Amino acid sequence: MAAPIITLTTDFGVRDPFVGVMKGVILGICRGARLVDLTHDIAPQDVVAGALALRDAWPFFPAGTIHLAVVDPGVGSARRALALSANGHYFVGPDNGLFTFALGAPDWSAVSIEAPIYRLPQVSQTYHGRDIFAPAAGHLAAGVDLERLGPALHDPERIEIPSWRVDGAAVVGQVIGNDRFGNRLTSVPADRVRALASRGRVTVELEGRDLGAVLACYADGAAGIPAPIIGSTGRLEVFVKNGSAFALLGAKRGAPVRITNI
Amino acid sequence: MAAPIITLTTDFGVRDPFVGVMKGVILGICRGARLVDLTHDIAPQDVVAGALALRDAWPFFPAGTIHLAVVDPGVGSARRALALSANGHYFVGPDNGLFTFALGAPDWSAVSIEAPIYRLPQVSQTYHGRDIFAPAAGHLAAGVDLERLGPALHDPERIEIPSWRVDGAAVVGQVIGNDRFGNRLTSVPADRVRALASRGRVTVELEGRDLGAVLACYADGAAGIPAPIIGSTGRLEVFVKNGSAFALLGAKRGAPVRITNI
Amino acid sequence: MAAPIITLTTDFGVRDPFVGVMKGVILGICRGARLVDLTHDIAPQDVVAGALALRDAWPFFPAGTIHLAVVDPGVGSARRALALSANGHYFVGPDNGLFTFALGAPDWSAVSIEAPIYRLPQVSQTYHGRDIFAPAAGHLAAGVDLERLGPALHDPERIEIPSWRVDGAAVVGQVIGNDRFGNRLTSVPADRVRALASRGRVTVELEGRDLGAVLACYADGAAGIPAPIIGSTGRLEVFVKNGSAFALLGAKRGAPVRITNI
Repeated sequence: MAAPIITLTTDFGVRDPFVGVMKGVILGICRGARLVDLTHDIAPQDVVAGALALRDAWPFFPAGTIHLAVVDPGVGSARRALALSANGHYFVGPDNGLFTFALGAPDWSAVSIEAPIYRLPQVSQTYHGRDIFAPAAGHLAAGVDLERLGPALHDPERIEIPSWRVDGAAVVGQVIGNDRFGNRLTSVPADRVRALASRGRVTVELEGRDLGAVLACYADGAAGIPAPIIGSTGRLEVFVKNGSAFALLGAKRGAPVRITNI
Repeated sequence: MAAPIITLTTDFGVRDPFVGVMKGVILGICRGARLVDLTHDIAPQDVVAGALALRDAWPFFPAGTIHLAVVDPGVGSARRALALSANGHYFVGPDNGLFTFALGAPDWSAVSIEAPIYRLPQVSQTYHGRDIFAPAAGHLAAGVDLERLGPALHDPERIEIPSWRVDGAAVVGQVIGNDRFGNRLTSVPADRVRALASRGRVTVELEGRDLGAVLACYADGAAGIPAPIIGSTGRLEVFVKNGSAFALLGAKRGAPVRITNI
Repeated sequence: MAAPIITLTTDFGVRDPFVGVMKGVILGICRGARLVDLTHDIAPQDVVAGALALRDAWPFFPAGTIHLAVVDPGVGSARRALALSANGHYFVGPDNGLFTFALGAPDWSAVSIEAPIYRLPQVSQTYHGRDIFAPAAGHLAAGVDLERLGPALHDPERIEIPSWRVDGAAVVGQVIGNDRFGNRLTSVPADRVRALASRGRVTVELEGRDLGAVLACYADGAAGIPAPIIGSTGRLEVFVKNGSAFALLGAKRGAPVRITNI
């Protein structure tokens, strides 16, 4: 059998050994697991940001990968611990909507992680990543069936993930964040942009400001001028060549973006 | 044999390829080693912070794990290079007190890493992590006996690790640092808090300021109000719900914390 | 066969899951690959900094290691995708000079990565790290011959890497960057310093300021006083004991450094 892969996504940062400790717990259960960090720099307790990061990343991993994610404002409260199978992948973390994107799959099934033998012997009030989620991921990697982790969970929490809508001849979405280069990411998928482009020239407005046509590559931009592009995440972005769209435009999460034919 | 695990703890940061180079050296000696970063963000040359991070993390790794740690203000001076076996784990790094916590084990044994064949052929004055410690960890992972790395070392350096004491009916400790969320960590262990709590209600004072009772989970806090909790490291912490105790209180390392029944 | 090693060097940072996604692509192609991060904190689009980081790190990895590096201002433009064999190692990334240092090897051979079966099915305009370079590295790790990735490339791009020259009895180099500790790194190799030192006492000038003799270890410095040392990268550095040479001196990349006998 191929070595199992476990990805890790948290808001723990890498200053403290929290993530390393979770890896120690996992390797103690499944020595052969391959561990891949997605990011540990989700803004503290920003469940939407965690969901967006994981939603874009998981399809690039092989079938059977286990995605462990902990962005968990409710740790220690009554929120459940979720292990989910969907699309041939596994997802393990708090039941707070972090995996909403995976619940669109027709084949999902979920359990509430409750079986004591698949947790650490002592479960703290504050560190379920180590005590509940890492052990569950480790046991899945070691071949334990999802169903053995706990009772079926039929109503996992769902949250609203930023989306887009058709508005007459336009497509309207919103800013969902920015990347390290200062590019502003939007919720508008590439295929929506291409559908409009197939009908003629398009233009993009961000918060009512006209940014012009969608460029083919970053090198086509003009220094200091914000411009739209289809980003690597498969969505419309706004970038500034040799600069930061975030610094220049300051458009916040939720700021409206509108694409239309001209 | 299960693949050997090596953890890495340094003050090297991750901007420069220093840590990656140590991993290259290790994998050149033991291709099958599993490498786990604990943290590389120890404040430069803060040996106490390195010791505290490693002390809290190592017990969550399986027996036989090798913990490589380099926080090394004395690199290039006469300080010795230490390889230590204790509690069924190995510890490799400068002999400057970084592993003081492991010397409480009854079974510890240590050597001074001196055998030239277990170092890189050229040893620099400034980068023993690469030239001495990474090779030693790699050779231990490859099955070399500790004793072959060099002569026995009977008097490893020890440093003072922040602790706690009983003061009448109270337990008194100190602030030892803060985590990424701004929580202030203290030196008071959870079992001391629980012992007091078993006798009745308790209250916590930080630098003479009354913070009230110890809460059960972060969600129980009131926004903007500092409150005590038993943290995931098994010690008393002070947190601020949706905020930073560090920013609000500014209590420095060494600030006194006092727990007592009311 | 020993598990293949792939190092990763980028300017992607670790806030976004870009690096993790490349690892997912690699592991989907070669499950047994050992992945080692060198750094993901190269300043955005600073090809020289990427080249310097990789030049210093690669010799510490075993023969056969694959070095994947993506610092790629020209992504989406006409720049070629390079896979290179040199000195018994492989190098994969944009053809923009990032691997200039490896082209000094007498045995180098290179191809332009073009074969569609060794790329992802869909190649974006903006994320060749995921779509072209990670798959190429994964296929090399899986045993695919370099020549199968695409046609031979006889004229890879080269860039000027900061160097040094003899000026009368002196050796003159320049500042090439600084490390996390604030040490200023220069382009002058250790053997040039040692050659001068074998003839008598030497002194170092940075931007015309006399810094005195080359010290043997950081501990020999005086607090707050900048001093030269042979750093772990095998080049002359300027450091400040318990301080930051960068903060104190502010010498920029390119600032001249001059070593001479006194």
